Amino acid sequence: MTNPLPAGARIGILGGGQLGRMLSVAAARLGFQTHIFDPSLTPPAGHVADRHTTAAYEDAKALKAFAADVDVITYEFENIPTEALDILETIRPIRPGREALRVSQDRLTEKSFLQGLGLRTAPYADVTDMASLEQAVAQIGTPAILKTRRFGYDGKGQARINTAEDVAKAIADMAGAPAILEGFVDFSHEISVIAARGMDGQVACYDPGENVHRDGILHTTTVPARLSGSQRLDAVLLAGQVLNALDYVGVMGVELFVTSDGLIVNEIAPRVHNSGHWTQNGCTVDQFEQHIRAVVGWPLGEGERFADVVMENLIGSDIARVMQLSQDKHTAIHMYGKSEAKPGRKMGHINRITAHKA
Amino acid sequence: MTNPLPAGARIGILGGGQLGRMLSVAAARLGFQTHIFDPSLTPPAGHVADRHTTAAYEDAKALKAFAADVDVITYEFENIPTEALDILETIRPIRPGREALRVSQDRLTEKSFLQGLGLRTAPYADVTDMASLEQAVAQIGTPAILKTRRFGYDGKGQARINTAEDVAKAIADMAGAPAILEGFVDFSHEISVIAARGMDGQVACYDPGENVHRDGILHTTTVPARLSGSQRLDAVLLAGQVLNALDYVGVMGVELFVTSDGLIVNEIAPRVHNSGHWTQNGCTVDQFEQHIRAVVGWPLGEGERFADVVMENLIGSDIARVMQLSQDKHTAIHMYGKSEAKPGRKMGHINRITAHKA
Repeated sequence: MTNPLPAGARIGILGGGQLGRMLSVAAARLGFQTHIFDPSLTPPAGHVADRHTTAAYEDAKALKAFAADVDVITYEFENIPTEALDILETIRPIRPGREALRVSQDRLTEKSFLQGLGLRTAPYADVTDMASLEQAVAQIGTPAILKTRRFGYDGKGQARINTAEDVAKAIADMAGAPAILEGFVDFSHEISVIAARGMDGQVACYDPGENVHRDGILHTTTVPARLSGSQRLDAVLLAGQVLNALDYVGVMGVELFVTSDGLIVNEIAPRVHNSGHWTQNGCTVDQFEQHIRAVVGWPLGEGERFADVVMENLIGSDIARVMQLSQDKHTAIHMYGKSEAKPGRKMGHINRITAHKA
Repeated sequence: MTNPLPAGARIGILGGGQLGRMLSVAAARLGFQTHIFDPSLTPPAGHVADRHTTAAYEDAKALKAFAADVDVITYEFENIPTEALDILETIRPIRPGREALRVSQDRLTEKSFLQGLGLRTAPYADVTDMASLEQAVAQIGTPAILKTRRFGYDGKGQARINTAEDVAKAIADMAGAPAILEGFVDFSHEISVIAARGMDGQVACYDPGENVHRDGILHTTTVPARLSGSQRLDAVLLAGQVLNALDYVGVMGVELFVTSDGLIVNEIAPRVHNSGHWTQNGCTVDQFEQHIRAVVGWPLGEGERFADVVMENLIGSDIARVMQLSQDKHTAIHMYGKSEAKPGRKMGHINRITAHKA
């Protein structure tokens, strides 16, 4: 076993959204304290954390004070500015480490990394200007999606190219940002593997979940996913390969397309993942506790699943359904404490237990 | 349905120990904020609550400010000074209500209340001085236990009387406090029913757990308890009767002795209860969320159990076992964030899942 952090140690979390919130609760449950770093005054995680610094990720002084106050630093989102990481890592360890962030912050780097491991991805090409986009479209064909290399999430920073006429608008949408053209994959469904790796190199994976999106945002994750035994094994082995290659510490979300001739990696996220929320009501150690266990040097939970679960996001006005949902005895409710229900905003989620396994 | 509190409403919790802590987490999970009132500077619940007032229960000004800041008031312990309750209830509703506190704060009142419902208790007698104690011993016999009527917990404020010679020492131990002599009950084991009642009068009970104590402190609770079908039904009906008689709102712990000729009520606690911690890993809605649901006017969870669980308290130096326990894949760890591990101090608990039910 590696040297685990002692009880009462403080975990710094960059980002105070719902993921940071659920990480904070998991940390408390294991006896740790948390300190949230987030630019907003009342981030969801602030409600359940010991400390909260309200500051920009460009605020070097605040970053230094934050790092000095904690024993280890983790994060709920991968798009942390490099300059902030440079400051933090001189003071305290960042887990998962810089390499995972470097790879996952850039779609081009990520795809190249995955292919370097012998894994399959969607066809892609680097796009820097109109000429390279036209060349990419010629190579990959349409339909295709032009995406910024960095800082995209929930369908933002993306432009679909159905015909050659869409090229000019798409390149304009990127506003000069480096981009990547991705071809479409002919897949039957999308799954994700929530995988974890401890400081001792131990790897544990949860059973893959099957994802359904609406308007570019995750709508439901269902476990078990529709997979053959060999597909399920492939998914888990593949995730382990990614974690090992990055000498990863923590939980990672690996999104995969299921096709008639195998699994194709969509993307990796070096953090707890929306498609892993079902573990809160399906496993003894959920993804949030698993992540905390990894970054503090505890043994990982095994990820064994005791229930079939459908996770559904409550987005925007979906929160009006909460009172009705609360009457279903097999539905667990997880709200994020956000005061304003804007369209497209994740307000909470439910885990509906559809069966328990003996 | 009663008028439920809206999302984001703030729940005031008197007492910031581990029960207040786990109530805070449950409240946050349903989208509520919490404000802890506790005399200590760093109570366990403070780590996960929105707000924390450090003040004595005699501080009228602090109590008024606390009450004005919240939408409803609940508590993690029953021994709240009457004067504090008098101040608070003029400002915000207190749930569970005053009657439950009045009854449970005094062992004599409690036993009399239970017998008034036709329920069985240990034999008991009021003790005010040496003469009444001698009379009580003559009536009840030995061994018996002299207990202060108020403010006892975990075996404190109690003196055992084995022979007539123990009488003088026992009465001295009470230091003039009103007391009650309780006879022993010939029971095979102790169980508790964690029961809840909503604002609409709906009652829900968890499956009874079987309790084992060590040194006067709860050591383990095991579900299922050893009970016949009719005993199990009796236990649950009895708990419902107590809740209804008190027009109760919230979760209550009802401790029962199992004897060869029926169930005998040991004591009732108008709050979430150590013997209900197993619900965190055995039920979709645990006792903490159940209590929050009740006091905010939400529908109750049904309390259905999906696992067999053994809850074990981690007391004092038991926390040294946590790293070892963390390696068992069927053990869920719940730490309280207390910095100092004193002998007899509850530092956390584990829920060991021994079977899942299909």
